[in-house]
Amino acid sequence: MQGITYHGSKSGKVVQSSLTRQKLEPDEAVVQVTHSGLCGTDLHYLTQNIALGHEAVGIVKAVGTSCKLLKEGDRVGWGYEHKSCGVCDQCLSGSDRYCLKASMYGKSDLDQGSFSNIGVWKERWLFRIPDGLKSEYAAPLMCGGATVFTPLIEYVRPIDRVGIVGIGGLGHLAIQFAAKMGCDVVVFSGTESKREEALSLGAKEFYATKGVEDFSKLGVSKPVDRLIITTSALVNIKQYYSILAQEATIIPLTVSGDDVTIPHQETLLRGIKIVGTILATRYMQNKMLEFADRNNVYPWVEKFPMTERGINEAVQKLKDGNMRYRGVLSWEY
Amino acid sequence: MQGITYHGSKSGKVVQSSLTRQKLEPDEAVVQVTHSGLCGTDLHYLTQNIALGHEAVGIVKAVGTSCKLLKEGDRVGWGYEHKSCGVCDQCLSGSDRYCLKASMYGKSDLDQGSFSNIGVWKERWLFRIPDGLKSEYAAPLMCGGATVFTPLIEYVRPIDRVGIVGIGGLGHLAIQFAAKMGCDVVVFSGTESKREEALSLGAKEFYATKGVEDFSKLGVSKPVDRLIITTSALVNIKQYYSILAQEATIIPLTVSGDDVTIPHQETLLRGIKIVGTILATRYMQNKMLEFADRNNVYPWVEKFPMTERGINEAVQKLKDGNMRYRGVLSWEY
Repeated sequence: MQGITYHGSKSGKVVQSSLTRQKLEPDEAVVQVTHSGLCGTDLHYLTQNIALGHEAVGIVKAVGTSCKLLKEGDRVGWGYEHKSCGVCDQCLSGSDRYCLKASMYGKSDLDQGSFSNIGVWKERWLFRIPDGLKSEYAAPLMCGGATVFTPLIEYVRPIDRVGIVGIGGLGHLAIQFAAKMGCDVVVFSGTESKREEALSLGAKEFYATKGVEDFSKLGVSKPVDRLIITTSALVNIKQYYSILAQEATIIPLTVSGDDVTIPHQETLLRGIKIVGTILATRYMQNKMLEFADRNNVYPWVEKFPMTERGINEAVQKLKDGNMRYRGVLSWEY
Repeated sequence: MQGITYHGSKSGKVVQSSLTRQKLEPDEAVVQVTHSGLCGTDLHYLTQNIALGHEAVGIVKAVGTSCKLLKEGDRVGWGYEHKSCGVCDQCLSGSDRYCLKASMYGKSDLDQGSFSNIGVWKERWLFRIPDGLKSEYAAPLMCGGATVFTPLIEYVRPIDRVGIVGIGGLGHLAIQFAAKMGCDVVVFSGTESKREEALSLGAKEFYATKGVEDFSKLGVSKPVDRLIITTSALVNIKQYYSILAQEATIIPLTVSGDDVTIPHQETLLRGIKIVGTILATRYMQNKMLEFADRNNVYPWVEKFPMTERGINEAVQKLKDGNMRYRGVLSWEY
């Protein structure tokens, strides 16, 4: 097998490369990629000579001899995680996303990614796309959708008031998912520029935070039970304490290696919880796709051709903060 | 204080009576009733000489000297529970609906009900109606809405497939609430007659069960995770086992003093749970009203005048199984 992939390079430009595989393992399937989302995490790997992209949708072209779940012609996707060990405590208790031996994007399988025309993956880590969900919408859900959906199911109830900080690839999905669960959704964004879009995505209230030091002066109408932070750069979590309800939960999704500072005493006295979460289990990945299909949750996408030029253009737009709200690369452009 | 109430009587006819109160306790408020829902439970008390009705909405007319939450002019409602002890394990842990000393409809405060023009109740057991929610819609939510909403929050997640058995006063609200939480809703009803209504309320699938002995032959497309039984008469729960998912939860809401039979071994082997639930805590009552307002959940009501004739007519229609789907008595008819 031979295919086209797109790699990072020292200069930070995405360049065309190739994938070669001598054989198909019995438990692997070959996917002809049609669409790939462009995720903020991809920007972290642009200067490395690895195959980029981890939000794929495509069509199964062949399956290994022991495959039982998929067949040629099935429409599937894959995301950030490619496999887990299957026998550790996490795997055995259904938390495969926290398996310490899991193969993850940027760490394993560096010769293939979703910026490509082909992928060869474990059948059990490919996810069927519901018939009603278009491939260009399904692609950004494979990582971005999964990442915001999981904590909404784990920590949020439809009776909760949910604050979404930031409207981008993750935030615009979090707003939709939470609104479609019946939550009271309130959005915090830098400036007023995205107010109308936030409301049309399902938010009931919108607050612009830029230049405001004391958030108690934002005029937030009621305290927020669950705060989901979706910004690409870390925010000052401490500022948000004044708009949190007693026993609120803070869910920071920003990808950053830096430390954050939280007010120790107030966290105790008010029963505040800060919870780490990343990606989705395979169970939740399936449930998320079904939920999106059933409730008409659609990523707002900007489409680019799956070429060196198209990818670099999309990358630049995302870097510049101008993507509204998820770039999708496609062979069907 | 003197007011009109409507009582049950030996013959089963509802008759006009009166309420007299010499004084207002410091923690009580006087409500001028404008609307009352008619609940299936009311039918159980028709032959008793007690004030009927427990789904009230009205306007606060006066408050006792120690009241701090309400003032004249506030629009409020009350439901099945009138007060709890405040100091038992249940009350202290937020489960006031299971307080053993709670005052409940049909057992306490027998001289006043919601079929009336006045109610005198503990301020802390009156619930503010959100501005956007019309009184004729709020009334049926005070008991019917609360009863179905609570288990949806406690046992159901937006990723679950929820089966609703029966479409009546409770069922038509359960369908709406579950659909507005993003659940996959499937309805089981006797005949085909309510199929279109079930789908327009938010169900994705509908199955008519009358005359079907073996439910595995209903052709249900996927097993059901949570089954909410809202019928006025008990159903044969055993029949539903074949359409349940592994680890499913059965939530039987039927009001009946009879025993039910469940398949013992299958319940164990499949991890099935049968959970009792009734009414709502005060916390959940408030959250339910907010949810209904925020997500446009509206009872389908048939209106009747708050008169002997109007009430008896509504009662007959409910007894005959012809109410679509909740009778509301009103002074503003």
